[in-house]
Amino acid sequence: MDPIRFDTQPADYRHWKLNVEGNVARLAMDIPEDGGMVPGYVLKLNSYDLGVDIELADAIQRLRFEHPEVRTLVVTSGKDRIFCSGANIYMLGSSSHAFKVNFCKFTNETRLYLEDLSENTGVRTIAALNGTCSGGGYELAMACEHIILQDDGNSAVSLPEVPLLGVLPGTGGLTRLVDKRKVRRDLADAFSTVAEGVRGKRAVQWGLVDQIAPKSKFSAAVDSAVEKLNADATERSGPGIKLDHLDPKRDGDTTTYRHVTLSVDTGKRVATLDVRAPTEPPPTSADELHQRGSDAWALRVWRELDHALLDLRFNHPTVGLIVIKSAGDASHVIASDNALSKLSDSDWLAKEVVLHMRRVLKRLDLSARTIFGVIEPGSCFAGSLYELIAAADRTFMLDAEDDGPQLQLSDLNFGRLEMSNGLTRLQTRFLANPEKVDELREVREPIDTEAALDHGLITFAPDDIDWDDEVRIAIEERAAFSPDALTGMEASLRFAGPETLETKIFARLSAWQNWIFQRPNAVGKTGALTTYGTPERPTFDYNRT
Amino acid sequence: MDPIRFDTQPADYRHWKLNVEGNVARLAMDIPEDGGMVPGYVLKLNSYDLGVDIELADAIQRLRFEHPEVRTLVVTSGKDRIFCSGANIYMLGSSSHAFKVNFCKFTNETRLYLEDLSENTGVRTIAALNGTCSGGGYELAMACEHIILQDDGNSAVSLPEVPLLGVLPGTGGLTRLVDKRKVRRDLADAFSTVAEGVRGKRAVQWGLVDQIAPKSKFSAAVDSAVEKLNADATERSGPGIKLDHLDPKRDGDTTTYRHVTLSVDTGKRVATLDVRAPTEPPPTSADELHQRGSDAWALRVWRELDHALLDLRFNHPTVGLIVIKSAGDASHVIASDNALSKLSDSDWLAKEVVLHMRRVLKRLDLSARTIFGVIEPGSCFAGSLYELIAAADRTFMLDAEDDGPQLQLSDLNFGRLEMSNGLTRLQTRFLANPEKVDELREVREPIDTEAALDHGLITFAPDDIDWDDEVRIAIEERAAFSPDALTGMEASLRFAGPETLETKIFARLSAWQNWIFQRPNAVGKTGALTTYGTPERPTFDYNRT
Repeated sequence: MDPIRFDTQPADYRHWKLNVEGNVARLAMDIPEDGGMVPGYVLKLNSYDLGVDIELADAIQRLRFEHPEVRTLVVTSGKDRIFCSGANIYMLGSSSHAFKVNFCKFTNETRLYLEDLSENTGVRTIAALNGTCSGGGYELAMACEHIILQDDGNSAVSLPEVPLLGVLPGTGGLTRLVDKRKVRRDLADAFSTVAEGVRGKRAVQWGLVDQIAPKSKFSAAVDSAVEKLNADATERSGPGIKLDHLDPKRDGDTTTYRHVTLSVDTGKRVATLDVRAPTEPPPTSADELHQRGSDAWALRVWRELDHALLDLRFNHPTVGLIVIKSAGDASHVIASDNALSKLSDSDWLAKEVVLHMRRVLKRLDLSARTIFGVIEPGSCFAGSLYELIAAADRTFMLDAEDDGPQLQLSDLNFGRLEMSNGLTRLQTRFLANPEKVDELREVREPIDTEAALDHGLITFAPDDIDWDDEVRIAIEERAAFSPDALTGMEASLRFAGPETLETKIFARLSAWQNWIFQRPNAVGKTGALTTYGTPERPTFDYNRT
Repeated sequence: MDPIRFDTQPADYRHWKLNVEGNVARLAMDIPEDGGMVPGYVLKLNSYDLGVDIELADAIQRLRFEHPEVRTLVVTSGKDRIFCSGANIYMLGSSSHAFKVNFCKFTNETRLYLEDLSENTGVRTIAALNGTCSGGGYELAMACEHIILQDDGNSAVSLPEVPLLGVLPGTGGLTRLVDKRKVRRDLADAFSTVAEGVRGKRAVQWGLVDQIAPKSKFSAAVDSAVEKLNADATERSGPGIKLDHLDPKRDGDTTTYRHVTLSVDTGKRVATLDVRAPTEPPPTSADELHQRGSDAWALRVWRELDHALLDLRFNHPTVGLIVIKSAGDASHVIASDNALSKLSDSDWLAKEVVLHMRRVLKRLDLSARTIFGVIEPGSCFAGSLYELIAAADRTFMLDAEDDGPQLQLSDLNFGRLEMSNGLTRLQTRFLANPEKVDELREVREPIDTEAALDHGLITFAPDDIDWDDEVRIAIEERAAFSPDALTGMEASLRFAGPETLETKIFARLSAWQNWIFQRPNAVGKTGALTTYGTPERPTFDYNRT
């Protein structure tokens, strides 16, 4: 199979129409039936596959960077009578377990990006449901701030996964229902088992939508909601910057970006991510930052990392371990962090660059791969790049006699790059002794290996004699363990501390869905997902677990 | 197979020795190799099965009620050089998926009961690790407040599940490591992949144990820790009360307790739990309560409910739906609640009775079965018994012309019976409008169907004409859905709001473990759990998910 590509742009969209008029953007889903990413299924009734979500993620990203003038985003459908019928069942039925899980994870991330757009960028979001909205369609709607449902005696919202498919509304659905929209649990229970869903006034009464409007007044109701939300949106002064294509060079198992190199060793099931510091000083004024646009190192390097992570996730499923290394002048990284930190209170682009960093780091935290940080002489794990080390499951730093590697911290290690649990990686790391974080706040000079070990910033510090063997053996051992046990272990150890909507979605809900995606009652020969759309009815093993 | 029995008493223990001297209890694990609950495996090296945990749960319960004089509990081993080697692998390997999951859930509950004993009853707990302690053994140790490890060059703590078995330390292990003991995540990662574990000073440095002591001084170290903790324990004045056997009458599919009847309809996969109010006024003084002892309705009825829930969980795995009904004089229930509420600040037994209620209700919340509450004329869902309705996934209350059913609230609905998420069921129910809870606090008179619907205390209120059909159809529909999808859905909808160590264990960790327990890499022909202890090495499908 050809590798899945994550680069796109509005002119190439097949599934969405992005239309910006003044300070309102409309994103209309209009999926061609033959628009599936791979052959074998028909995307009827605005049902989606990964290709549809890749475009949605791109559109949200471009609104942030290319259209700062937008104050409200309306997510709607380009088809009559149907908003979206959710993930395509035949696509799910014909996909491998690993693909299903990764597809859901990407969809979850994209919906959280929509919420990040409203919560942190200040673009207000409206789901304008001009037709029936079921399953993943309603999960998408719930990721918007305000839901308007057409009241035409037919259009309903529904989560038919349990009654029809024997799986969960697992891309945020159940969690958003009771935790975001705070729908009463017994009503949520009833709603999630009624295949035909709920419409009209009851949908409002139960808290499933915020507003209904008859067909004749639907468009006016949306306009008036836009007007109202627009008033509270965050002012971002244009013009935007253009996000250019990354166009990495691929050479065998090596993908070379401008600031990142991804090398995959399929035999050893290990990938190495090499990150390079900027070679020149950062932009220090908002003007300069806007001029550099998507060439600014801090934006470019994290876009490249994001791209590499998605490439690993979807195109290299057997790689179990990511080794992260870095090279370059740490002082440039610190200078870039400082400039962004200073500018991001007043300049929207600087703020967006940091928000983007945060999302990429979250994607790394959520990678179902082991992450090892390897800190060698010449590396530049400083400030924002130290977050890669803090995100690692384990780190090795060479304890050299002379010219050993150093770490360094910046303001960005103490705020703005929070994990899904709402804490910084340092706060999570030092849950047992929070005063350690305050202590480190004062340490701004470069930190050598011994001090890094003392501070608890790294895990192991082998000397020259042990280094090669210790790192090699750790990598080999890790790559030999059960990949499933590692996934479960890493997901459990990475997110100590408070839980949020986000961690609940990825931990509780996804874990249950992954379990169900393995069960014969869903994916066996007579399972509900397998028999859906055939004349067969599913047969279940009724043992409750 | 004979049904699994949950009744036991110290004289019948085969696996533990409970020894109370003064205000110190010692609970020593000493498992006979031939003590397995079913044939087919040998309980070597203090490895345990469900039978061992049933005794542990009983011992903790009896310490609460029968030994109020105990201030400190020492959990240790009766064997030399070995504390506990965890759950028996051959037992796990030969068990069904459903049994594995239910076994882990019971083990988790029992460990939380140990924590409840120290946090809420005030009995201090010490794990005295007089030998090697691995897997579930270390998970048990972590459920104690203070861990002392023998420093003899050999005794280690370890979580070898990932490297040796391809599964997780899934009975609280990973969660307690980073969330309770707040072990740094990279150290936790290293620890959880080193099969031989960590011993001596490093175990203290990493935060895995609180104290080490050489063999010659081990017993003295434990004594001195006991002395220290004893000083901070809660004073509870004796004598205790004797927990008598419940001895229900079994007649075909009906089990009749004094205040509860459990009827199982295996064909329909539905069980009915009928709960009866007390027939006489409650004890109103501490003396009276102590005199009634385990005959007090409020203790007895919840012990019976607990017993019935365990019976359903283990002995009726295909029953997917529990219908909860009640009958009797609601005013007696309210009077009992009021008396307990008043007494529990000053009397340890009243407090224990309420803590016990809370644990049983939590066990109900965690039942992987649908719960429907059915409220008919003559029912007594008042106060603490209303919690059964609040715990239900959906409730039906008859809207009768005359003499319809009523609900009523007591102080216990507003505190002391919190769910695992730390909130009351009413707080969880009304997350969207917390002021509703304050409003209800003032409503103490009986609440009829219309008012109950208005207040949001019930889900549906069919009238006489619709009642039979509506309830019957809802039950039939529910019982026909995929049991796995229902389990995942219910687990997701029941626990909105904050997460705690407890919900993290049951949601995140258990869900991952359940997923792994299905995976060929663990339980397939060449999976790690299957091949453990054989000459074969496991072979893995290395796709990461």
